[in-house]
Amino acid sequence: MTAVAAYAASAAKAPLERTTIERRAVREFDVLIDIKFAGICHSDIHQVREGWGEAVFPMVPGHEIAGVVSEVGPGVTKYKVGDRVGVGCLVDSCRECENCKAGLEQYCTGGMVPTYNALDKDGEPTYGGYAEKIVVDENYVVRIPDGLSLDVAAPLLCAGITTYSPLRHWNAGPGKKVAVVGMGGLGHMGVQLAHALGAEVTVLSQSLRKQDDGLKLGADHYYATSDPKTFQELSGTFDLILSTVSAPLGLDSYLSLLKTDGALVNVGAPEEPVSLNLFSLLAGRKTLAGSGIGGIRETQEMLDFCAEHGIGAEIELITASEINEAYERVLSSDVRYRFVIDAATI
Amino acid sequence: MTAVAAYAASAAKAPLERTTIERRAVREFDVLIDIKFAGICHSDIHQVREGWGEAVFPMVPGHEIAGVVSEVGPGVTKYKVGDRVGVGCLVDSCRECENCKAGLEQYCTGGMVPTYNALDKDGEPTYGGYAEKIVVDENYVVRIPDGLSLDVAAPLLCAGITTYSPLRHWNAGPGKKVAVVGMGGLGHMGVQLAHALGAEVTVLSQSLRKQDDGLKLGADHYYATSDPKTFQELSGTFDLILSTVSAPLGLDSYLSLLKTDGALVNVGAPEEPVSLNLFSLLAGRKTLAGSGIGGIRETQEMLDFCAEHGIGAEIELITASEINEAYERVLSSDVRYRFVIDAATI
Repeated sequence: MTAVAAYAASAAKAPLERTTIERRAVREFDVLIDIKFAGICHSDIHQVREGWGEAVFPMVPGHEIAGVVSEVGPGVTKYKVGDRVGVGCLVDSCRECENCKAGLEQYCTGGMVPTYNALDKDGEPTYGGYAEKIVVDENYVVRIPDGLSLDVAAPLLCAGITTYSPLRHWNAGPGKKVAVVGMGGLGHMGVQLAHALGAEVTVLSQSLRKQDDGLKLGADHYYATSDPKTFQELSGTFDLILSTVSAPLGLDSYLSLLKTDGALVNVGAPEEPVSLNLFSLLAGRKTLAGSGIGGIRETQEMLDFCAEHGIGAEIELITASEINEAYERVLSSDVRYRFVIDAATI
Repeated sequence: MTAVAAYAASAAKAPLERTTIERRAVREFDVLIDIKFAGICHSDIHQVREGWGEAVFPMVPGHEIAGVVSEVGPGVTKYKVGDRVGVGCLVDSCRECENCKAGLEQYCTGGMVPTYNALDKDGEPTYGGYAEKIVVDENYVVRIPDGLSLDVAAPLLCAGITTYSPLRHWNAGPGKKVAVVGMGGLGHMGVQLAHALGAEVTVLSQSLRKQDDGLKLGADHYYATSDPKTFQELSGTFDLILSTVSAPLGLDSYLSLLKTDGALVNVGAPEEPVSLNLFSLLAGRKTLAGSGIGGIRETQEMLDFCAEHGIGAEIELITASEINEAYERVLSSDVRYRFVIDAATI
C-alpha cells in the first residue's frame, strides 16, 4: 500500500479537501502512474453531489487522467517506466462477457469498475484522478501519443471518447450533416472531432456567446437555440445530432431537425426523466439513442486520431486548491472549455 | 365523377353511417378498384375521434383495402381490368423528394396524401376504404399475389407493412431475438412476419390470454407483462423489441430488456407524450425509434413475402352495419385479430 495525497469529498455535497488515500501495492499486471493532470468533468459534480444516486464516500473524483508510468508489475508487457499514459472512466471489467470481448468494456454486463465512486473486484473503494498517483491494470491504461501534450490530453479520456465513440458509431463523416448541441466541455470536443472526421458541423448553443470559438474549432455553422427561428430554419436538416447537455432538452423540437432515418444521440445525462411524443420518432423513422464513453481499444484509437489531427481540449489549468471554485464555475457554464488540475499542486 | 356508397362519420366521434360519396372520374394514370374487403385499423378510430388532432369530416376511414380493378386510365401500364390489387395508407406523394425517389413515400417531405382524412393535390378530400369503389393512381396501388385471399390480405396493407418494414429495417432474422409487444392487429402480424424472417420470437402481452394463438402463429416464447418477474427474467435479452401498442408503455422497463446496441421500435402511437429516463439509453448504447407504415415498393415486397410464406391476417369478417360495434370491441381489445368489412354489404 502506498499513501498518496488526494482531494476528496467526505460526504455528499461536502467541499473537496486535501487528504491522504491508500493505493494498492503494484500487482503482477499493474501499472503505477504518476498523475500529471486530471480534468474536471461535469459528471464529477453530479456524483459528488449524489445527483445520480447514492455514492461512495470519501470520494476522490477524476476520470480524465494523464500521467507517466513510474513502476510496472512483473507481468506487464504493454508499458514501461517513463511511458506517457492515460486512464479514463473505467479501471476494470469482467473481461468475459460478449461486450468485453468485443472491446465494449464500457457496456460490460458482468459489471465494469468505474475509476471512482465504486468498489473494485476486491471490494475496495476506487479513487479517481484528483491525486498524486494511481495504480491500474495495464489493460485499462491507454498510451498518450507523443504529439499530444498531457494537459490537453487529459480531458480526452472522458470528454474526447464520449463524443468520438458516437460520432464513429453513427458514421459522422464526409457528406454528413452533424449538429452538436451544447458548447461546453463535451461539445467543444464534439465539434473538433466531427470536423476532423469530415462532417459538416453545426453548433446548436443556447446563445451566440461562444460562436467565435465554435467556428475556430471547426464548426461550419452556429445557431442560438434561444431563437425559435433556428428550429424553423433547420427543420429536417441533420443526419446526426449529438446532444452533450445535461439539462433536459425539448426532445420533440430537436427531433424535428433530423432528416428521415436521422439519429439524436444523447451523451449528456439529465437527472430527471424527459418527456417525448412518440410521433416525433414515427414521422421519419427517427432514432433517439444514448451512448456512454467508449471501450479501451476505441479510446486508444481516439487518442491516436487526436494526435494525428492536432486535436486537444481547450483547457484552463488550475491548482488543486481551486477545485471547489471550479465546480461552481462549471455549474454556471463559466469555463472555456475544461478545467484541468495541475497534479503537482495536490 | 361517380357516386359510390360508403360508410362515413359526419363529425368527430359521430357514429359511422351509410352515405354516398363522389369518386373522381378515372384519369390517365388512374385505376378504378371495386373494393371487396376493408380492414378496420385502430388508427381509423383514433382519427374518427380526433385523438390525433383535428380531422376532415365527413370521414370515410379505411386504409386496408383489397379489391379488383374494374377500369384503368389510358396511360396505365401496371394493371388491367380484373387484377387483384390493394391500397394502403397513402394514395399519392410529391414523387420528387429524396424519400419518394428512394421508395420511402411514407416519409415524403413534399407532403404525402393519406388515403383518407386528408386533402389530395387538387384540394379535394380523400375518402378511404369503407366504400364500394376507390380511384387511385397506379403508382400507389400494389398487386395482391394469387396465393393470398383478398379478405386476409386486406389488413396486410397497414398492419402487415407497419410491422414488416421495421422488422426488415432493423434486421430481424436468423440469430436475432425479437420481442413483439402487444398481441392485437399489428402484433399478430409482427409475430408471423418475424418468425417467417427467421428470428426467435417472444410475445410480450399484458396477460397469457392469447398465448395459444401466439405460439400457433410462430412465437417461440410468450410472457405476461403484468408479471414483474418477466422483466427480471428477460433483462438484456433482445436485439429488437417491436412495440405495437398504442397505450403508453413504461419505456424504461422495456429498454432494460434490450441487449447492448438493441432497438425498441414503436409503431403504435400513444396520443399523450411518454416519459423516459435517458440513462436507459446510455447504458448499452440503446435505440428508441419509430417507424411508420412502409413505401410502395416495400409494401409489394411484403405481400409477395406473405404469399410465399402463407401468411395472412387472422380476421373476423363483419358487415358494414357492424362497424360501430366493431370499433367498441377494438377499443376493449375484443378482436382476434382484425375486423374486416365485407364491402358487398356496404
